[in-house]
Amino acid sequence: MITPTTYNLLTSTRVFFGAGKLDVLHTLSMPGKKALVVISNGKSVRENGALERTLGELRQAGVEYEIFDEVQANPTKECVETGAQKALDSGCDFFVALGGGSVLDATKVMSMNATNRGDLWDYVMSGTGLRKPVTHTPLPWIAIPTTAGTGSEVDAAGVITNLATKEKLGIFSVFAEYAIVDPELMVSVPPRFTVLQGFDALFHSLEGQICKTRNIFSDMIQEAAITNVARYLPVAYRDGSDMEARSRLAFASTMSGYSMVASTCTGEHSIEHALSAYHEELPHGAGLIMISQAFFGTIIRKHVADERMVRMAKWMGKEDAKEPEDFLLALGALQRECDVDNLRMSDYGIRPEEFADMATNAQVVMERLWKQDIEPLTHEEIVRVLEESYK
Amino acid sequence: MITPTTYNLLTSTRVFFGAGKLDVLHTLSMPGKKALVVISNGKSVRENGALERTLGELRQAGVEYEIFDEVQANPTKECVETGAQKALDSGCDFFVALGGGSVLDATKVMSMNATNRGDLWDYVMSGTGLRKPVTHTPLPWIAIPTTAGTGSEVDAAGVITNLATKEKLGIFSVFAEYAIVDPELMVSVPPRFTVLQGFDALFHSLEGQICKTRNIFSDMIQEAAITNVARYLPVAYRDGSDMEARSRLAFASTMSGYSMVASTCTGEHSIEHALSAYHEELPHGAGLIMISQAFFGTIIRKHVADERMVRMAKWMGKEDAKEPEDFLLALGALQRECDVDNLRMSDYGIRPEEFADMATNAQVVMERLWKQDIEPLTHEEIVRVLEESYK
Repeated sequence: MITPTTYNLLTSTRVFFGAGKLDVLHTLSMPGKKALVVISNGKSVRENGALERTLGELRQAGVEYEIFDEVQANPTKECVETGAQKALDSGCDFFVALGGGSVLDATKVMSMNATNRGDLWDYVMSGTGLRKPVTHTPLPWIAIPTTAGTGSEVDAAGVITNLATKEKLGIFSVFAEYAIVDPELMVSVPPRFTVLQGFDALFHSLEGQICKTRNIFSDMIQEAAITNVARYLPVAYRDGSDMEARSRLAFASTMSGYSMVASTCTGEHSIEHALSAYHEELPHGAGLIMISQAFFGTIIRKHVADERMVRMAKWMGKEDAKEPEDFLLALGALQRECDVDNLRMSDYGIRPEEFADMATNAQVVMERLWKQDIEPLTHEEIVRVLEESYK
Repeated sequence: MITPTTYNLLTSTRVFFGAGKLDVLHTLSMPGKKALVVISNGKSVRENGALERTLGELRQAGVEYEIFDEVQANPTKECVETGAQKALDSGCDFFVALGGGSVLDATKVMSMNATNRGDLWDYVMSGTGLRKPVTHTPLPWIAIPTTAGTGSEVDAAGVITNLATKEKLGIFSVFAEYAIVDPELMVSVPPRFTVLQGFDALFHSLEGQICKTRNIFSDMIQEAAITNVARYLPVAYRDGSDMEARSRLAFASTMSGYSMVASTCTGEHSIEHALSAYHEELPHGAGLIMISQAFFGTIIRKHVADERMVRMAKWMGKEDAKEPEDFLLALGALQRECDVDNLRMSDYGIRPEEFADMATNAQVVMERLWKQDIEPLTHEEIVRVLEESYK
C-alpha cells in the first residue's frame, strides 16, 4: 500500500473547537461591521437558544446584524440568490452561518454571489453552468455548525440544487474566516438525524481512502474520522446528551471536511447527489447509506484498494479483518447498530425507471467527483449500483 | 487516559506539500509587488540551486525582489531589525523565507518589525521585553523550508536571540500566506544536521503529548509526527537521497509545527533555549537531545503521564512497551541508531557553574513554555536535569 507524500491543504479557516466555544465569538476580530446571520427555515436554533446566544455574541462584539431564515434542506439556487441580495440590500458586509451543512453551504455561496452579481449559475463550473470566472473577492463568512456531518466549516465549496435543471452540484467560494465548532450546539439533534449526518462524515473519509488523490495527510485525517464515527455514532444515537460522543462526532466531521480539501469524495457522492437532485426530500446521508454496500462492493470487485478496505474495516472496529469484503461487514454492522440498515428508496418515491438518467446525471453534473475514483465506475456500473440498492 | 476534546487551530497558512512543489510558486497569487528574499549567511541555497529556482519562480510570477543573506543560526535581534529595515529601504512589501528554521523564524519576525517600527524588544511579551502591543498588520510572508525540523512554516512565532540580555525567546508575528514544503530542497542537508533537525521535530510532538493543553487534534498530529520520525530518521541519516524518508520527515516537521499551534512545547524547550542563549554555537536539536533522557525521566518519576509514555514508546517502535520507562529505552535506541547518544555539553564549553543561572533563565525568559508541563519542573529539578545530562 503506497501512500503518496504529496498534497495541498488550502484551508485558511481558523478553528475554535470544543464544548462551549461559541462564547469566544465576541472576542474575535470581526471581518466586517454588519452581519447577515443565516439560519434554516426550521425552528431549532430559535428554540434551543443557539440563535439568541450568537446574536448576543455579535452585539458584544459591537457589530450590527440582520437575520435571513429561509434556507431549506438541500438549498436551492433561488435561496442563495435571495440571501445574497438581502445582504446587499441591508448593508451587510459579512455573513455568519449558524446551522447544519445546508446553511453553511448556502451561506458560503451567498458570500460569493454577493460580490459576483447576476445569475448564480453563471459561475457554476460544471453541468449547465456558464463557467464564468469569479473575479471579485467573496464577502467573508463565519461558520458555526450545529450538526456533525458535512465538515462544510473548513471547506470552500457549497452544494446547491438547481430545481429547474435537476442539478445538485458543488460551487466554489471562499474558506470561512473562523469556524466555531461547539458540540453543545449539537445536543438537540434528534437520533435519526444524528445518524444520517454521522454517516455523511464517515463517507467523506471512506471515499477519501479510495480516491485518486489520497495522500499522507488525508490518511491521517481519515483514520481519525473513521475510528471516531464508528466508535461514537452508536453512543450518540442512543444518548444524544453524551458530550464525549457529540465532541468526537463533531471532530470526525471537521476532519472529514479537511479530507475533502486535501483529498476528495468520489463517485459515491456523485451518485447520491443525482438521487437527491431528483428527489429533494431525500436526506443526503440516507441516500449515501442506501447505495453504500453496492458502491463499495463494486470497488472491492475491481481490486483497486484491497489493503485499504481491510484497513478501513479494522478502523471501524473489525480487528480481525483479513479480506476486502470484511469492510462491507463492518459497514453493515454499524448501519444495523444505528437502525439504518433498512432504508428504502421506494419510501422516497424513487423508481428504477429513473436510474439510467440518474447515472448520466452523476457522470455529467458531478463529473469532477465521479472521476475521482481510482477506476471510475462506468454508466452501466452506476446503474447496477442503483439497482442493487433498490428496495 | 482522558484526551480533552477542546482545541484552537489558528493556522491560516495554505500548504503545498511534496517533492517538486516549489514549481507551484509562480502560479500563486502573490501577496505583494516586491519580495525581500531572506536566506542564511551560508552557501547551501546558492550552491544547491534552490535560490535560483525560487528567484525564477518570482520572476515568472511578475514580482520584483531583493535578497537579504545575513541570517545566522540562532538569529539575533540585530539580524531581524536589519532585515526589516532593508525591506522598507528597498520598497519590499512582502517576504519570501527560503531556508531552515532560523531563516523562517527571522523572516516572520522581520515581517512584524517592518510595520511595527522601533526596537524589536519593545514588542517582546516576556523576559526584558517591553510588552508593547503589535498594532500594525505585519507584512505577508511565504515560507519555503529547506530543512525538516522546526515546523516554523505553519507557526506564527519566531525564536530570536538577544545577545546583550542572554535571552532566546519566541516573538509572535503572523502565519505565512503560503508554505511550500518541498522535500527535494532537503536532500543536500548533511547527515548530522538531518538528525539534529529530525529530533527537534520529534521533541515538538513528544512535548506536545505531555503538555497541559494536549487535545484530540494534537494527539492525531503528534502520533503521525512521532511514528514518522522514529521510522524514517535513521533511513535519511544513512541515505540522504531517500525521497520517501525525506518526505516523511518533512511531513513530521510540518505536523509538529501544527502541534505547537494546537498544543505547545514544554519545559524541555525552555531549558534548551537557556542552554543555547548562553552558548549560541550549540545547535538547538543537539541541546534537546542532551537533556532529553533526564528531562523525560523527571516527568516519568512524577507519574503524571504514565499511559502517554507507554504509548509514545509504542509509536517509536517499541511495540512491547508496558512501563513508562520503556519510553526512555525507545528514545535511547533512536539516539544510538542516529549516533547522537553521546553528545557532550563540555564540547560546547558549557560548565556546571552556569546551571543555576540557566535554570532561572528557563523559568523567566521562557516562562510561557516552562509552565506548560502538566506539573512544571521546579528550579531545583531543572538544575538536576542539567547536572544529570552533563558530560
